[in-house]
Amino acid sequence: MIELLNQPSGRHNRFLRALKRMPVDTTPIWIMRQAGRYLPEYRATREKAGSFMNLCRSPELACEVTMQPIDRFDLDAAILFSDILTIPDGMGLGLDFVEGEGPRFAHPVRSAHAIDALRVPDPQTTLRYVPDAVRTIRKALDGRVPLIGFAGSPWTLACYMVEGGPSERFAYIKRLMWDQPDALARLLRVLTDSVREYLLAQADAGAQALMIFDSWGGILAPEDYRRFSLPSLAELTASLRRDDLPVIVFSRGANTHLPELSHIGADALGIDWSIGLGEARRATQDRVALQGNLDPAALYASADALRCLAKRTLADYGDGPGHIFNLGHGITPDVNPEQVRVLVDAVHG
Amino acid sequence: MIELLNQPSGRHNRFLRALKRMPVDTTPIWIMRQAGRYLPEYRATREKAGSFMNLCRSPELACEVTMQPIDRFDLDAAILFSDILTIPDGMGLGLDFVEGEGPRFAHPVRSAHAIDALRVPDPQTTLRYVPDAVRTIRKALDGRVPLIGFAGSPWTLACYMVEGGPSERFAYIKRLMWDQPDALARLLRVLTDSVREYLLAQADAGAQALMIFDSWGGILAPEDYRRFSLPSLAELTASLRRDDLPVIVFSRGANTHLPELSHIGADALGIDWSIGLGEARRATQDRVALQGNLDPAALYASADALRCLAKRTLADYGDGPGHIFNLGHGITPDVNPEQVRVLVDAVHG
Repeated sequence: MIELLNQPSGRHNRFLRALKRMPVDTTPIWIMRQAGRYLPEYRATREKAGSFMNLCRSPELACEVTMQPIDRFDLDAAILFSDILTIPDGMGLGLDFVEGEGPRFAHPVRSAHAIDALRVPDPQTTLRYVPDAVRTIRKALDGRVPLIGFAGSPWTLACYMVEGGPSERFAYIKRLMWDQPDALARLLRVLTDSVREYLLAQADAGAQALMIFDSWGGILAPEDYRRFSLPSLAELTASLRRDDLPVIVFSRGANTHLPELSHIGADALGIDWSIGLGEARRATQDRVALQGNLDPAALYASADALRCLAKRTLADYGDGPGHIFNLGHGITPDVNPEQVRVLVDAVHG
Repeated sequence: MIELLNQPSGRHNRFLRALKRMPVDTTPIWIMRQAGRYLPEYRATREKAGSFMNLCRSPELACEVTMQPIDRFDLDAAILFSDILTIPDGMGLGLDFVEGEGPRFAHPVRSAHAIDALRVPDPQTTLRYVPDAVRTIRKALDGRVPLIGFAGSPWTLACYMVEGGPSERFAYIKRLMWDQPDALARLLRVLTDSVREYLLAQADAGAQALMIFDSWGGILAPEDYRRFSLPSLAELTASLRRDDLPVIVFSRGANTHLPELSHIGADALGIDWSIGLGEARRATQDRVALQGNLDPAALYASADALRCLAKRTLADYGDGPGHIFNLGHGITPDVNPEQVRVLVDAVHG
């Protein structure tokens, strides 16, 4: 890792150098959900796989879709194709993806009894398909760009496991949080251990950076966030730091916590588009790199407008190292892929 | 108004006194969507009305549901029962509420041509049912608690009108914003004029405070917010200030803009639960009163936990005048009404 960082900046390492706030030849860019439905070649592989989970569970097919945006665009990082819900699936909750509805668990976790029955899924057996995919992808990448491994945050996984799927009101998890905080603490304990083992297995298999998606951090009032999301993020970043492997934490909608998040030992923070990068930088005092934060809807605009918006985002970050360009949320399925090329060129130019 | 403000603090005026940051006998509380589906008596009236829009368009039925939570709980303000989409409906967009899907317009606004054809709907003819409802409710309230009138913000109405209904990605409005900013400016112009006339008609009919719901302010990146939402909010608050009529602005998800919002001349700002009231108060420097901000999911917790959470919110605001207790978003339909009683008692106690 340190050798790669110290080579001159280029496509193969500018993402890693930016994460460490080292100078780069041009701002690196990758896009959340870059291997996704907006690409016709992704839809073809997805159809071949039969189901979304088949796609995740096949190292060869996961590798195939991971490589598609890397082959098509001048992106500066690849991200393992997988899903944050592999861990609860490995715990036996029975994950299924219902067309148009998103993920569903056959067995949501709704009692202290169910929580206490949960065990850390072994990333070398139950979840072996994930490190296997990492190894397959690293071979296919052949050093072209670095590979990001990832997991959901303990709080976010707890939300899905208790709600049973996507939620609008989060009634079950919040009732658990306020009425049985000790039970939730035990759930977060087993999830923090699981995420740590899972991410370390990805690192051992060759992931060159790790990202934690705290997608539901922003649904918490500040005091609840500090009690139920932030501590497990801090524990994870501390236990993941080995050989200078960079860690990115994206706590979506939690911009009010950026100062605290800049102190937990992450190398970079993901930033959504509700705050300016300049303001995020002031809030984090250049302690961390920042990854973001173009409004994903910018890809619906004309090519000219998109270029202006990309430049606005770059200018908002300002001078100095430590910016990894990305959207503020995942790319949407109805985007014209050619717009991604316009964006990548605008950022690199 | 000034006479009412200067009377000793009680249920009839503590809400208005708090809006003006005057001392109160106890923190006032009202709840967004307090006249809503969680109440069995609301569901009965709604069924009698036949449709949601019939309920809005009948001053007698709108009065009936407005009064229901006031009769049942010790709330400190009533809010006109209506919908923010009455204005676009009055412009001829053909509003309909599809069960389980929310509002839909038969004729979304998708071109500069369609924008230029829009006219300010006359609140004394086309939208007369709204000031009529205000007059009917004021009579029924008989001075018990003040009545709040309201409207959607120009930006938020524009979102609904261009998207045609609720949206996840806001592709149409954002494309318009970036590709045809002058056309969007003309849409915001006619909407700002419409909202001003509409709110002044409510004030003339007897509304004692006015609230502007900028429900979609938070989907904008800061620079877009400053260009397309904030200016019309500022223009409206300036033109609505007459006889010290208090104005509340709730720009949901836009907490990063609280310092700027505290300067536009609003008496109070609505606050969602993603920021602490103490922090919001520091951001606004006590220039305005603050309305909020309990997580609506707190009503799913046990009565004991709910009381603790209410006290936490009160403590977070701290000493001094200027706090109007509310949820950080509307009350959800599956809440047990008895929990509202627990909350109101906890706040008043």
